[in-house]
Amino acid sequence: MSERQSISQTVTSLDDVRRLMAALPGPDEAAADRAADHEAQLTKPAGALGRLEELSAWVAAWQGAHPPRADNLRVCVFAGNHGVVAQGVSAFPASVTEQMVANFEAGGAAINQICAVVGARLKIIPLDLDEPTEDFTRAPAMDEAACVAAIATGMAAVEDDVDILCLGEMGIANTTSAAALSCALFGGAPAGWIGAGTGVDEAGRMRKRVAVEQAMALHGAALADPWEALRRVGGRELAAIAGAVLAARLKRTPVLLDGYVCSAAAAVLAADNEHGLDHCQLAHLSVEPGHRRLADKLKKTPLLDLAMRLGEGTGAALAAGLLRAAVRTHNGMATFADAKVSEKNG
Amino acid sequence: MSERQSISQTVTSLDDVRRLMAALPGPDEAAADRAADHEAQLTKPAGALGRLEELSAWVAAWQGAHPPRADNLRVCVFAGNHGVVAQGVSAFPASVTEQMVANFEAGGAAINQICAVVGARLKIIPLDLDEPTEDFTRAPAMDEAACVAAIATGMAAVEDDVDILCLGEMGIANTTSAAALSCALFGGAPAGWIGAGTGVDEAGRMRKRVAVEQAMALHGAALADPWEALRRVGGRELAAIAGAVLAARLKRTPVLLDGYVCSAAAAVLAADNEHGLDHCQLAHLSVEPGHRRLADKLKKTPLLDLAMRLGEGTGAALAAGLLRAAVRTHNGMATFADAKVSEKNG
Repeated sequence: MSERQSISQTVTSLDDVRRLMAALPGPDEAAADRAADHEAQLTKPAGALGRLEELSAWVAAWQGAHPPRADNLRVCVFAGNHGVVAQGVSAFPASVTEQMVANFEAGGAAINQICAVVGARLKIIPLDLDEPTEDFTRAPAMDEAACVAAIATGMAAVEDDVDILCLGEMGIANTTSAAALSCALFGGAPAGWIGAGTGVDEAGRMRKRVAVEQAMALHGAALADPWEALRRVGGRELAAIAGAVLAARLKRTPVLLDGYVCSAAAAVLAADNEHGLDHCQLAHLSVEPGHRRLADKLKKTPLLDLAMRLGEGTGAALAAGLLRAAVRTHNGMATFADAKVSEKNG
Repeated sequence: MSERQSISQTVTSLDDVRRLMAALPGPDEAAADRAADHEAQLTKPAGALGRLEELSAWVAAWQGAHPPRADNLRVCVFAGNHGVVAQGVSAFPASVTEQMVANFEAGGAAINQICAVVGARLKIIPLDLDEPTEDFTRAPAMDEAACVAAIATGMAAVEDDVDILCLGEMGIANTTSAAALSCALFGGAPAGWIGAGTGVDEAGRMRKRVAVEQAMALHGAALADPWEALRRVGGRELAAIAGAVLAARLKRTPVLLDGYVCSAAAAVLAADNEHGLDHCQLAHLSVEPGHRRLADKLKKTPLLDLAMRLGEGTGAALAAGLLRAAVRTHNGMATFADAKVSEKNG
């Protein structure tokens, strides 16, 4: 039995997940120190590569090794269907989730092209697409068994040999789920967590807002527990993302989170444990207004801001190219001594 | 004689350059329209790839062809030495320019690693490193012959078969030249165009400010002409960059401009002709405070903001990876019809 199977198979309840969250491994400070020592010798003014320098040290710290690695890039895209689509919250019919999964598998989607450009391998994980979650304006989206099964699927998707894990999602109506989950985790008015998603009009945005308001009223105090919030207003792909983020932490794999939906799912870990997302970076700031709020709550600055709002892991895969550049500069540059370049005056 | 030789060899005076600037080719609107038509059919919500969609259409418009291409990425790094280094404006000795050129050629610098990651070919063009320009606080940096020779070298560096041209520079003291040139082109207090460069302290920043103030006083009204400003307070690598930007326009090659120095050099074209930089994108917002001011004056939003301040074309090469992703998604994605994905409701 592989380590991967052993970790995900120990999770049979949300309490099992909570126990893993209470004993998360931290960063490897020695690896981070070695990265800082090496960085200072490279042929450039100190700090001149900015966030690239921070990223290479961060990768080393979370991989628990120096030099950091960014050879094996893996993109996992989780897909799920949502009962809340019945509230008229999406511009596209629910059938598009499965159609887009077929498009991913045929190589025709945006994420396929970006993976080819950055040299990442793509894995698509559909979650019971023929069984949408319940409409969370009327009932919990999932029972505990369904939620735990999705979390375990996400955990099992994280392979042992991955250097950088990029996460993404597909699910018609899932920006409404992301808004409800963000509102449950961080509070504030539902309207502040709502956006146009795939492109709904003003009436569609109002239906999204009403759906989130109804969910907050229905589930009430039960949302105070982050994992219970995930079960009640999340979705299968969101639960799988939360599971993948947790498994990556246990396997010492740094994570790039895509846009709003992916960040909302991962935020469950931050709400449970203030260091729960220290091994993750926000890859791209979505046009969805809730994402900026979420980034602020998570105290993270997205690596890219290209006005995208697609999901599928596209932002994460683009940012993986930046991470690869960060690691390559750190590992591949000459030192002042090697290159016989004069150091700073004085 | 190749087209490349023929264009650069016609430039024997700044007036020759001004004549080329007065008759710049515009974008190919038909290619841009074909890009927009194709983009609308791809399997994603309209606009969901944000700036990537704009970039692929922009590449098509400036290449004058659809589909756009981003296979042959070329990075040109121009290097020069500056007499103004005598004013104590850099944290590094002038000898570092030549040492870093050797480092580029040996493959040890940051730009070498980033070129390897994004798949770009790197070309280093040192410009008379043993003949620094004059100290522009006391005399014009270059006479017309030297300035025109550098412009022509930059023009000749732009090959015919390049899909995307990335420009960068190396030159100890050249952020002081960039500050003086920006101040000459766009006005304002010299202090607002000054920064820490490679890492000078407060006293060093004061010396930079004083140098720019002296240059403004010495050269005065002669700076009102952008090409004369380039000659008087620029440098050989800045003149070469301006020449490369001009040649790229004539050859229908879209350009990615690196940070502050590169943008200041290119800004000469914008000061001469309000559409002079329409075929260029700012790749990365430098930490140098003058770069944000310059970006505002040029009405351009940099593609990346990673707190870098290295030069060498590093920001431009990183952004080339984004451009390649933009072109690949545009050209490689399936259409709604091909993939049998349902379109938006109603």
